[in-house]
Amino acid sequence: MFVALERLKLNETNSVRIPAADLHKQVSAILQGVGTPVDHAEITAKILVSASLRGVDTHGVGNAAGYSRLIENGTYTVPQTVEVISETGTTALLSCGNGIGFIGAHRGMEISIEKAGKTGLGMTTIRDGHHIGMAGYYAMMALEHDMIGIAMTNAVPAVRPALGARSMLGTNPIAFAAPAGEERDFVLDMATSTVASGKIALARRLGVPIPEGWAITAEGEAITEPPGGMGDHWTMNPLGGTREQGSHKGYGLSVMVDILCGVLSGGGFSSQLATGENMTWTMAIDISKFRDVDDFKAMMDDMIRELHATPALPGADGVLVAGDPEADAAEDRTANGVPVENSQYDELRRRAVQLDVEVFI
Amino acid sequence: MFVALERLKLNETNSVRIPAADLHKQVSAILQGVGTPVDHAEITAKILVSASLRGVDTHGVGNAAGYSRLIENGTYTVPQTVEVISETGTTALLSCGNGIGFIGAHRGMEISIEKAGKTGLGMTTIRDGHHIGMAGYYAMMALEHDMIGIAMTNAVPAVRPALGARSMLGTNPIAFAAPAGEERDFVLDMATSTVASGKIALARRLGVPIPEGWAITAEGEAITEPPGGMGDHWTMNPLGGTREQGSHKGYGLSVMVDILCGVLSGGGFSSQLATGENMTWTMAIDISKFRDVDDFKAMMDDMIRELHATPALPGADGVLVAGDPEADAAEDRTANGVPVENSQYDELRRRAVQLDVEVFI
Repeated sequence: MFVALERLKLNETNSVRIPAADLHKQVSAILQGVGTPVDHAEITAKILVSASLRGVDTHGVGNAAGYSRLIENGTYTVPQTVEVISETGTTALLSCGNGIGFIGAHRGMEISIEKAGKTGLGMTTIRDGHHIGMAGYYAMMALEHDMIGIAMTNAVPAVRPALGARSMLGTNPIAFAAPAGEERDFVLDMATSTVASGKIALARRLGVPIPEGWAITAEGEAITEPPGGMGDHWTMNPLGGTREQGSHKGYGLSVMVDILCGVLSGGGFSSQLATGENMTWTMAIDISKFRDVDDFKAMMDDMIRELHATPALPGADGVLVAGDPEADAAEDRTANGVPVENSQYDELRRRAVQLDVEVFI
Repeated sequence: MFVALERLKLNETNSVRIPAADLHKQVSAILQGVGTPVDHAEITAKILVSASLRGVDTHGVGNAAGYSRLIENGTYTVPQTVEVISETGTTALLSCGNGIGFIGAHRGMEISIEKAGKTGLGMTTIRDGHHIGMAGYYAMMALEHDMIGIAMTNAVPAVRPALGARSMLGTNPIAFAAPAGEERDFVLDMATSTVASGKIALARRLGVPIPEGWAITAEGEAITEPPGGMGDHWTMNPLGGTREQGSHKGYGLSVMVDILCGVLSGGGFSSQLATGENMTWTMAIDISKFRDVDDFKAMMDDMIRELHATPALPGADGVLVAGDPEADAAEDRTANGVPVENSQYDELRRRAVQLDVEVFI
């Protein structure tokens, strides 16, 4: 039923399976090899491996070599200091110190959780940052505290506004996590574009076409050959795709992300960002301040079970709930190793050798 | 370019223009005619007229006669008490007292704003409620306080999960408002389905077809003849429409709304609700706790101007920002009167006569 999407998956031909623990050691070693302090390298490695375990390969360990080059060439300031610029009992404005985005976002969510534990709600917005990887990781940090977690991040333009023909917005993702009881936690992690930009880059690397509706030319014509690079010659569609199908909604959500991440922090909205810059926003909600946590989780379980029991469309295997595919991937990959795309596997090993750090994979 | 959408607009043939002030008096009189206290009737009338002024006709004054019947037949408990069930400095769980939904949502947003003014953030979730009308109204209440406002509400099933063939979710809208300086405020108010359900009902009343992508049969076939009533024979698509175009994202956002409105309040998620029940969630964020409000607004202005300046798709007049169409409608309608669909105009007058209250329109 979903041929194009299936062709974007890693398989035995285009990837090699590596144990998650070895990947963690490799990523951390590479980051330390370019001067990242141990604690920051460990946090970043943990988040990257988590993305790879959950099947979010576009945001996984394959990016570690690239980050290490950005650290080496000074694009990222490392070591960095995450500074609190302003703060109240519930809120904080942080600077990521132009360093590794993961570190600012991780600290931001820690602070949101601390504040929510005391007051019920915590919110941070983080300027001077870079790529944070899988936004869902930060939202999920709230789960073990019986909190709802939300995280968003903006990015340089890759997506057009509704009715527009040029990229003005990042893929500006929204991540939302809420704890269940016996069922799996609800974890939504979505770009506000039709598809995450990494999917188009992956299609290009794998040499497979993309479905109509993901991207258009500057003249408004549908693109099926995955384009390379950024620029004015092509742009991605906001979620909804066309005016009649609700492209103003995906567009509006993207601007909402820009407001919370870029404008509230002062770090800048999408079209003000330099390549590789990302501003981030996090929030935690302490469920116990509203109602009994066990009752909340029991109702989550009821909801998730009812959704799973929905009769499926002809040709579909069944109805999923946000987080299901990632949890399935994590089960498989924890047991059988994480598939790493061949070219990225080679690159990680080369980078380790180049930096004269131990090769673990 | 957008024929189907144009045909859903009110015009000189299918509607009559009435001054907003007269509509307000008429709606308030009808609600008072069935025993609604003056202050509650005035709040509800204000919100309904605001929706009509902003061109959100599906959520406007045309619904007042229907609400009055729900009050009369006891579906809505009137007079109602909005009760605080639990509360902290930043949060509150409210009961709408099974009364008019507008009153609970309005009180909820007032409380969110009060708490945000003191602590930075305020959040309320409201159970035992009914229809709240245009969700954007509540989000916009934050604007005059230099706050960001957010409001969501769930509803009985009308929308299918991604890959599902039966309605399990309400159209579960998200409204988000942030103040600009010289430019118009940003006001996003969107159903998480491809289209608001009122648009399909309107198409049916006006006798015009709907575009493919809005709704499908239980067998997964596209529907273009607007269906009547609810039931298992048809369902609306979540934003994104198909798996490849991101239907799991609209679906995920809809469940997020259900969690914040239905599960966090304990009032129930979509498929637990009785017809006409709606649980609601509101939030206010005090911008000044993060950064200087004038700086925030100046950056909002920059962003809005850049978005407006985006080169448009061939055939499109220009790029809009969320809230533009509604602000345009409000300018026109404030000056020239609010168009009320002929059948709804007749119904309002008949209802006023029936209740023996003054006829203002």
